[in-house]
Amino acid sequence: MAVVVQNVARAEAAVIDALGRAGVATVHEAQGRKGCLQSYVRPIWTGAQIAGSAVTISAPPGDNWMLHVAIEQLAEGDILVLAPTSPCDNGYFGDLLATSAMARGCRGLVIDAGVRDVKDLTVMGFPVWSKAISAQGTVKETLGSVNVPIVCAGQAIEAGDVIVADDDGVVVVRRDEAAAVLEKAEARLAAEEAKRQRLAAGELGLDIYDMRPRLAEKGLKYI
Amino acid sequence: MAVVVQNVARAEAAVIDALGRAGVATVHEAQGRKGCLQSYVRPIWTGAQIAGSAVTISAPPGDNWMLHVAIEQLAEGDILVLAPTSPCDNGYFGDLLATSAMARGCRGLVIDAGVRDVKDLTVMGFPVWSKAISAQGTVKETLGSVNVPIVCAGQAIEAGDVIVADDDGVVVVRRDEAAAVLEKAEARLAAEEAKRQRLAAGELGLDIYDMRPRLAEKGLKYI
Amino acid sequence: MAVVVQNVARAEAAVIDALGRAGVATVHEAQGRKGCLQSYVRPIWTGAQIAGSAVTISAPPGDNWMLHVAIEQLAEGDILVLAPTSPCDNGYFGDLLATSAMARGCRGLVIDAGVRDVKDLTVMGFPVWSKAISAQGTVKETLGSVNVPIVCAGQAIEAGDVIVADDDGVVVVRRDEAAAVLEKAEARLAAEEAKRQRLAAGELGLDIYDMRPRLAEKGLKYI
Amino acid sequence: MAVVVQNVARAEAAVIDALGRAGVATVHEAQGRKGCLQSYVRPIWTGAQIAGSAVTISAPPGDNWMLHVAIEQLAEGDILVLAPTSPCDNGYFGDLLATSAMARGCRGLVIDAGVRDVKDLTVMGFPVWSKAISAQGTVKETLGSVNVPIVCAGQAIEAGDVIVADDDGVVVVRRDEAAAVLEKAEARLAAEEAKRQRLAAGELGLDIYDMRPRLAEKGLKYI
Amino acid sequence: MAVVVQNVARAEAAVIDALGRAGVATVHEAQGRKGCLQSYVRPIWTGAQIAGSAVTISAPPGDNWMLHVAIEQLAEGDILVLAPTSPCDNGYFGDLLATSAMARGCRGLVIDAGVRDVKDLTVMGFPVWSKAISAQGTVKETLGSVNVPIVCAGQAIEAGDVIVADDDGVVVVRRDEAAAVLEKAEARLAAEEAKRQRLAAGELGLDIYDMRPRLAEKGLKYI
Amino acid sequence: MAVVVQNVARAEAAVIDALGRAGVATVHEAQGRKGCLQSYVRPIWTGAQIAGSAVTISAPPGDNWMLHVAIEQLAEGDILVLAPTSPCDNGYFGDLLATSAMARGCRGLVIDAGVRDVKDLTVMGFPVWSKAISAQGTVKETLGSVNVPIVCAGQAIEAGDVIVADDDGVVVVRRDEAAAVLEKAEARLAAEEAKRQRLAAGELGLDIYDMRPRLAEKGLKYI
Repeated sequence: MAVVVQNVARAEAAVIDALGRAGVATVHEAQGRKGCLQSYVRPIWTGAQIAGSAVTISAPPGDNWMLHVAIEQLAEGDILVLAPTSPCDNGYFGDLLATSAMARGCRGLVIDAGVRDVKDLTVMGFPVWSKAISAQGTVKETLGSVNVPIVCAGQAIEAGDVIVADDDGVVVVRRDEAAAVLEKAEARLAAEEAKRQRLAAGELGLDIYDMRPRLAEKGLKYI
Repeated sequence: MAVVVQNVARAEAAVIDALGRAGVATVHEAQGRKGCLQSYVRPIWTGAQIAGSAVTISAPPGDNWMLHVAIEQLAEGDILVLAPTSPCDNGYFGDLLATSAMARGCRGLVIDAGVRDVKDLTVMGFPVWSKAISAQGTVKETLGSVNVPIVCAGQAIEAGDVIVADDDGVVVVRRDEAAAVLEKAEARLAAEEAKRQRLAAGELGLDIYDMRPRLAEKGLKYI
Repeated sequence: MAVVVQNVARAEAAVIDALGRAGVATVHEAQGRKGCLQSYVRPIWTGAQIAGSAVTISAPPGDNWMLHVAIEQLAEGDILVLAPTSPCDNGYFGDLLATSAMARGCRGLVIDAGVRDVKDLTVMGFPVWSKAISAQGTVKETLGSVNVPIVCAGQAIEAGDVIVADDDGVVVVRRDEAAAVLEKAEARLAAEEAKRQRLAAGELGLDIYDMRPRLAEKGLKYI
Repeated sequence: MAVVVQNVARAEAAVIDALGRAGVATVHEAQGRKGCLQSYVRPIWTGAQIAGSAVTISAPPGDNWMLHVAIEQLAEGDILVLAPTSPCDNGYFGDLLATSAMARGCRGLVIDAGVRDVKDLTVMGFPVWSKAISAQGTVKETLGSVNVPIVCAGQAIEAGDVIVADDDGVVVVRRDEAAAVLEKAEARLAAEEAKRQRLAAGELGLDIYDMRPRLAEKGLKYI
Repeated sequence: MAVVVQNVARAEAAVIDALGRAGVATVHEAQGRKGCLQSYVRPIWTGAQIAGSAVTISAPPGDNWMLHVAIEQLAEGDILVLAPTSPCDNGYFGDLLATSAMARGCRGLVIDAGVRDVKDLTVMGFPVWSKAISAQGTVKETLGSVNVPIVCAGQAIEAGDVIVADDDGVVVVRRDEAAAVLEKAEARLAAEEAKRQRLAAGELGLDIYDMRPRLAEKGLKYI
Repeated sequence: MAVVVQNVARAEAAVIDALGRAGVATVHEAQGRKGCLQSYVRPIWTGAQIAGSAVTISAPPGDNWMLHVAIEQLAEGDILVLAPTSPCDNGYFGDLLATSAMARGCRGLVIDAGVRDVKDLTVMGFPVWSKAISAQGTVKETLGSVNVPIVCAGQAIEAGDVIVADDDGVVVVRRDEAAAVLEKAEARLAAEEAKRQRLAAGELGLDIYDMRPRLAEKGLKYI
């Protein structure tokens, strides 16, 4: 029941990094408007924009033992992703665990629960997206699992999936779709730039996207 | 059913701007403690303080088509105000729409739903008060209405009403009450300054407002 | 029923200040993982870290009269702690009350309700931990009590208890346990420093805390 | 500020009663999918299905004084509709007020706050749709208004509007649209009956509503 | 830290039973409008009305071990009251524990968390007031305490305090105030009966309580 | 993107039915305390206890088109399971769709959104577990998918997985684990019966499960 899966496959580093540069909203649209974690998962400090491979953790409520186990499984560039087995906002993670994770090359944490020592984490530049900020401590009594499929904030995530996170929240990209999603994301970014200039010049979306005929056909009335 | 009301009456620009300088808490008190939107509507970045005339939008959940329609209705100094027809936290609005709205003179957005591209919006200096930050995208399939009466975060708002928004949240002032509310707001600000100095000098509100007799009469006991 | 308790005993100033320097997470752990207020109570601006003796306030929903009464009871270094008698997110407190409280030596406010004028409070450097930010005003019609036992955000608090608050939230320490808790907090901080260095060097918590045998005994499987 | 509007116009009794028989979902659809109060307003007992003219109440949080004032304004067949001026779940209403309201011909209460004595209200057959059930009492200190426009659970409601409520929740119909809405509601009920029989016989909605071509055109793939 | 307090003092059985007959709303008012647990604690089945002495339990999130310990401390007529040390909605309690508690004379459970086997508990006639219904199981790994002071759903409760619970929710009465509260509750019930008859006859609360002069003095206008 | 997967494998009918008889709490424990949907998904009427194979639906917010598509995919004994692509409480399903689903042998609906016509659904004996009851209607404009993997109320569910639902909520069992889980569930039920009798006779869980030595070892103190 309680397992640690080792030797997880990961996407190509260059693809992961490029997805990180594209950002959450663009990646989400590029993959067909899927993969966003629920909006209550928020960054503890603003400005971070990262991507990495998920090291997943399923942990009992109020028990952070498996975080210690997961840190050993980190490869350079990974992101820890923790889902409690039932809703919990305890502070599972703080500055000591962040120190350890950073020493192993970890880029950040996504957690459907709480974290603490947020001032220290901010100073250290360790980014976290969490449901809560809470000093409430945890125990180390009950096993969970590492690198098994989890559901975190409404999204199914597997070890090795690509996590992209920024001020807009968090999105997951299936490992085997990462390269294709990146291609679409980059096409989207290129297309957006041209539109931005036309919109900035005062042109209307109604005209750029030729929306007027379809609005009329659906029955929109101007009065 | 789906209509766009054009030629909306607005309050006088000088009144609107002065209400903006007075700020949300003062305006709310000046109009008899009414008009505050519910407190879950929060600014996506702190420090903005604006006022403008409402261009209202009623939109289906997960469908941002009407924002494109509304942007055409913007006059210099307006504020977009969107209420979904049922609770939704999708990201209806991002940097492209903000670029378009700013090009039309829009001062900000109040939305009882989500927005995205918040890092870009912050850099652009486009202020938003929203229920959520979410990258979750929307479709353009179902009509709504523009400049009709809406209920946004618990307040009834009509096109042309004055919206005041700052770090304390958002308040709406009826268009035809704007001038009278401003007068009371300015009187209030003047009166507060004198009280502030007395309080800073250590005098007690109990004495300044002569509260002690009424507290005793109501039965307050000191032990 | 409505009483103001005067002459409240307080912990030693040096102990209070040292607890403030230790911070919320450390103090919470040092006293056996108890005393944290619920995580929805959040600072209105980040970076403050304070400790002080509680002046408690029990107030009706939407009525801030007792804050004026409580301010007279403040001693240098105290913290106001307000719990409404039923859930409420009105803005009970703003810049005028803060001016008055600061003039009496108050270090901050913890409130299971709303505050307003948050831009002013930030500029003034007056820290507040609250459930909400709301401009919605209050009345002064119904009595409450000052310096009686209250429950604030899930914790029982008595007048004179030590409140510690920082970006992680708020924790309460019983007045007569303050010195003993401080001793444990300082021991904890000393021990953490050594661990931090080992973790930063790449050593694993699994090894530092000798967790591997117990994990194996509980049945954790590596695959 | 604090007013009681008398001599409120009401819709025709036969229309009101017929809207009550049609029920909430049908009336909501018949008027173009608008008017539903938010879904957190739930009946305290199941099985009631009513319609009546709204006597509206705007009341401060934790203060039920205006309910006594409103009861005098009731006409036979009316429904009390209360919105607090800020979120509150106190028990504003119990068996004594229900006794009084029933004696004046009141058909029920819709309240964006709490009620109590729910066992008694159930035995009396007095239906209530509320946000909460709470024994927490209220005071009688601050005025509000009766028969002014309010926003209750997300819907703007004016005195004399028609309220329809059943196990699905609550919907409001504008007084001057009531007759037209009823006509559409009855047409809808008639049309539904034929569809129900075809569906019960195993025919598919896909075929009855001829959805297959449009699904294919939009790109739905069967695999 | 983890303790079981034995030999808890309890209120007189006749007083407890009479408080139970008076019910939650009446008892809450009789003791000066205090003691109600928050309204999210709801009965799992309707119709139960009980009172008993609290056996209190402080338990970690997701760990129901202490319930077994607490059951040994039950005396005839007691009520179990459990508060988790951080928010949790796991199902701590089901039909086996209820069987055991009933065998020890327990009258019910109040829990700021979840329960399960609710169909069985209903058939057994064992009443529960809970925050959630959830089948999610718990572990037995971490100690808590029994018969220590707790905060449950916003109220401070000590072992031996009187708990009254019915369809309106739950109220706590301090053990040493129980007799005095009962006296006031019974006076209140007697007074209510006379008022109920007058109200049923159509007399208005405005007249019975002589509210008109004070409403006029406060400035209520009829238009 | 928008697909309908046909020819879904299902577990053996006898296994499914026996899991239904075992009930949610027992099945959840038997499979190692996993699979429970979040507790906010509640039955619209009490007393139903069902099991069936999942026909999964991923649908946009406020759009119920895919329910019509899914009904064609139903086999005798299936359960519809709908997850919106972002949070929504609209009423996606009512008596007409229930009539159609029942005609195809459907046993019930689990929906992380709203339903309506709940009085009719209750009379028809069609069980639903939902997040909300809401009359708010939906559109038929945007495609979704049927029988693809979804996340519903916190659990990943695939078409053909076994859904068990009763008054305690909903649990999902992987199709290929169904037989093994049933075996453990039946063993558990047999073991519980013996314990129930000992507990009913007054024996304590502390003794039956031999907890006293471990409690003492962990440090529990009796005072």
